[in-house]
Amino acid sequence: MEDLISQTSKIIDELLAAERRSAPQPRIAPEAFEDPQVLRPGRQGRSEAEVFEMLRQIVAQTPRSSDPRFFNQLFAGRVPIAAAGEVLASYMNVSMYTYKAAGPNVLLEWELVKRMLELAGIPDGDGTFLPGGSLANLVGMLLGRNQAAPGMRDEGAPPQRLITYVTVEGHYSINKNAGILGMGRSNVRAIAADPSGRLCPEDLRSAIETDLQAGHLPAVVVATSGTTVRGAFDPLEQMADICHEFGIWLHVDAAVGGSMLLHPVERTQMRGIERADSITWDAHKMMGVPLTCSALLVRDPEILTRSFSEAADYLFQADTDFLNPGKRSIQCGRRNDALKLWAAWQHLGDEGWAKRLDRQLHLARYLAKQVEAHPALELCEAPPLTMVNFVAPGKSSPRICEILHTRGDAIVGFGDCAGVESIRMVTMNPEVTEAQLDRLIEEIVAVASKLPDAAPSIQVQRERASSAASSS
Amino acid sequence: MEDLISQTSKIIDELLAAERRSAPQPRIAPEAFEDPQVLRPGRQGRSEAEVFEMLRQIVAQTPRSSDPRFFNQLFAGRVPIAAAGEVLASYMNVSMYTYKAAGPNVLLEWELVKRMLELAGIPDGDGTFLPGGSLANLVGMLLGRNQAAPGMRDEGAPPQRLITYVTVEGHYSINKNAGILGMGRSNVRAIAADPSGRLCPEDLRSAIETDLQAGHLPAVVVATSGTTVRGAFDPLEQMADICHEFGIWLHVDAAVGGSMLLHPVERTQMRGIERADSITWDAHKMMGVPLTCSALLVRDPEILTRSFSEAADYLFQADTDFLNPGKRSIQCGRRNDALKLWAAWQHLGDEGWAKRLDRQLHLARYLAKQVEAHPALELCEAPPLTMVNFVAPGKSSPRICEILHTRGDAIVGFGDCAGVESIRMVTMNPEVTEAQLDRLIEEIVAVASKLPDAAPSIQVQRERASSAASSS
Repeated sequence: MEDLISQTSKIIDELLAAERRSAPQPRIAPEAFEDPQVLRPGRQGRSEAEVFEMLRQIVAQTPRSSDPRFFNQLFAGRVPIAAAGEVLASYMNVSMYTYKAAGPNVLLEWELVKRMLELAGIPDGDGTFLPGGSLANLVGMLLGRNQAAPGMRDEGAPPQRLITYVTVEGHYSINKNAGILGMGRSNVRAIAADPSGRLCPEDLRSAIETDLQAGHLPAVVVATSGTTVRGAFDPLEQMADICHEFGIWLHVDAAVGGSMLLHPVERTQMRGIERADSITWDAHKMMGVPLTCSALLVRDPEILTRSFSEAADYLFQADTDFLNPGKRSIQCGRRNDALKLWAAWQHLGDEGWAKRLDRQLHLARYLAKQVEAHPALELCEAPPLTMVNFVAPGKSSPRICEILHTRGDAIVGFGDCAGVESIRMVTMNPEVTEAQLDRLIEEIVAVASKLPDAAPSIQVQRERASSAASSS
Repeated sequence: MEDLISQTSKIIDELLAAERRSAPQPRIAPEAFEDPQVLRPGRQGRSEAEVFEMLRQIVAQTPRSSDPRFFNQLFAGRVPIAAAGEVLASYMNVSMYTYKAAGPNVLLEWELVKRMLELAGIPDGDGTFLPGGSLANLVGMLLGRNQAAPGMRDEGAPPQRLITYVTVEGHYSINKNAGILGMGRSNVRAIAADPSGRLCPEDLRSAIETDLQAGHLPAVVVATSGTTVRGAFDPLEQMADICHEFGIWLHVDAAVGGSMLLHPVERTQMRGIERADSITWDAHKMMGVPLTCSALLVRDPEILTRSFSEAADYLFQADTDFLNPGKRSIQCGRRNDALKLWAAWQHLGDEGWAKRLDRQLHLARYLAKQVEAHPALELCEAPPLTMVNFVAPGKSSPRICEILHTRGDAIVGFGDCAGVESIRMVTMNPEVTEAQLDRLIEEIVAVASKLPDAAPSIQVQRERASSAASSS
């Protein structure tokens, strides 16, 4: 077993060395793996040495999400001690339903929840960790659904339609969750966003009024703090006013933006979050903690237990409800996703997080400035967070991303930024240097220069999008 | 960073040594951790060395789930190379929504799904990994709900009640999920079990007929392969006949038992599983893979995409749907739970799994035999799987478990075995020796002998339970 650990460490060392070298990592076509002998587990086993060699190859062939060439997702890079915490959690292998089984891990999870509640301004609330922001959003929406339709947990749905409101820029999990929760995807209202991507409160109010007149039940308003593509922050105070007025649950999807509560200046973008009923906050995005590490925070300290507790005498055998977090969860067996975040927080402290966030924001602003200054590129908007959207005017953004990816220069995605098909670079890895960004810009320009003109100008794309929106 | 890895390895080595020593691990009262200075993350950070020392203590104070004294849950022990796979997955830190982001990990996940589908007898189906059996059950139930009420994903619930059927011995997640999915917990019918804990098909049929007469919509029948407390296997063929006759979705909760499909003899207990519409199979239970590693398998190869695909142009930018498993998932960001199972399967092969299962079953039968032979103990039933339920006649099972736990002799739970409050030992860790079981039996007898007589005999408990059931 100890030998296995040293074998594993060697593969990790190789990965870390590759990240430091940051050589281009050309895309491998899926067909290259099609020999089933290689990937298909068989009747007979192989020696550990053989399997380790296979693991080494898998690691070498996997896109390196902590390589300075990776800008594709809302996560990148790692806090080293968080990775250590994750490894220890894997070896301890406890399930977080009871103190009996998980011991102090249950308590340190609670300390994290408490710290996050304080930062959100709802210090007397409750919270739980979930495997991903989509599921945290699901629980937030579920609580709102049950507030609007109190019999739904036990008896099933009421006759009225249960309506969810979210900006057109919101995450797709809101639609998906409405389908899962029996609320219906067509009962999700896509509220207009202003030019900077923030929900328009007047449109929210009029949508609610229309639904009330039609006899529907407005159930959940979802505000987004840090939209997926553009990083916009919805106006929480105005939305909270409306929710208060109509008695609607306010869920804040701060999966991306929640971490900004640790930034002394930028946290003002979330003014009003202390009036939310529930909040999603992913630590695996801006905080460099391995996937997944998502918290759901709630204002009402009893509501999670009230909503999810089931009799399970075989499991909940000792201690108070507080020490049995399984009673507050949609899961039964649950990984210890807390230890990695706890280790990172102990090491960095609030101050260390603020510095890390500063660096991520600085990189986005630096990149935006360089793009703006470059004659061959055009910035779509000043980045409110770490998503930098820009174009090489006249050139196809998807095609540019594809070429960069194929050659291995960078993994970058494209986005829809207010109707403009943009190159979207997310600066989540604070280890990326300004020089690496400069080099990548030059690579993008070089790729673009060889492409034929194919895309309309930003101006034309925006006009088309806005006339399409007003005619729909 | 490399230094961090060697620090982490040292803590793991200590944990492994402690598991080998298997000294008693007395329960630590939660109050012992109540100094907030220790567990609460603060404004200022601490050095990595300090945090490592804290991590070392957390590990030392956490119940050792792979210690031969741990019999409390449906998991215990570890396949070493699975732990290695888990560690590498943490360091690669890819999200499993796209081939673009996760590369070959998406393909090896598919090979696992395919192998599991073959073993279940639905080779042309589809599948996905989920964080835990409760959520896999949720997806299975959701698919059945949407079959019974095809408009529910988009429009919301129909006026009729949507009914779920599961044995009284089924897992509590079925109730919880009915609440989440908008089907209603009071619309879950608890079907009677026979004396060996298997669902009674006649009772299922008559419950369905009653609901149909009342105008309700029977939506999902949940069969359990390996019930939580007793390890019973529901009669799948008869249940499949009934589901076929009435056109109801058959979901098999084989979270525990699914692995037995790898056992050439015992797999016959699941005869009929090839007629299921959906199946939950947790590899983190009998297969010694770190938490969580749950698969949901489905017969209809299109249904997951049809049920969960959403437009998300920012994410799904390349490749076919097959290479974008995010379109088949209730999650967005998703951990790589596949690599650990894949590494273990490559090493063990089907044959290695069969041997491992044999050993787990052997330990359960050995323990049952020793209990039966002991004058101070009474076996409740021959264990169909790895859950061994027994009593020290006249003595309180919960009290015995509590004393063992407090002293650190063993972590063991109690159960309700056909109305009898039993000591429930689960033999999931194949590394446990017969001598260790013998020693534990003696410890249990010694603890029991010092307790006052408090519990009625098995016979009396059973009679009370059966008269309570027939009067309700």
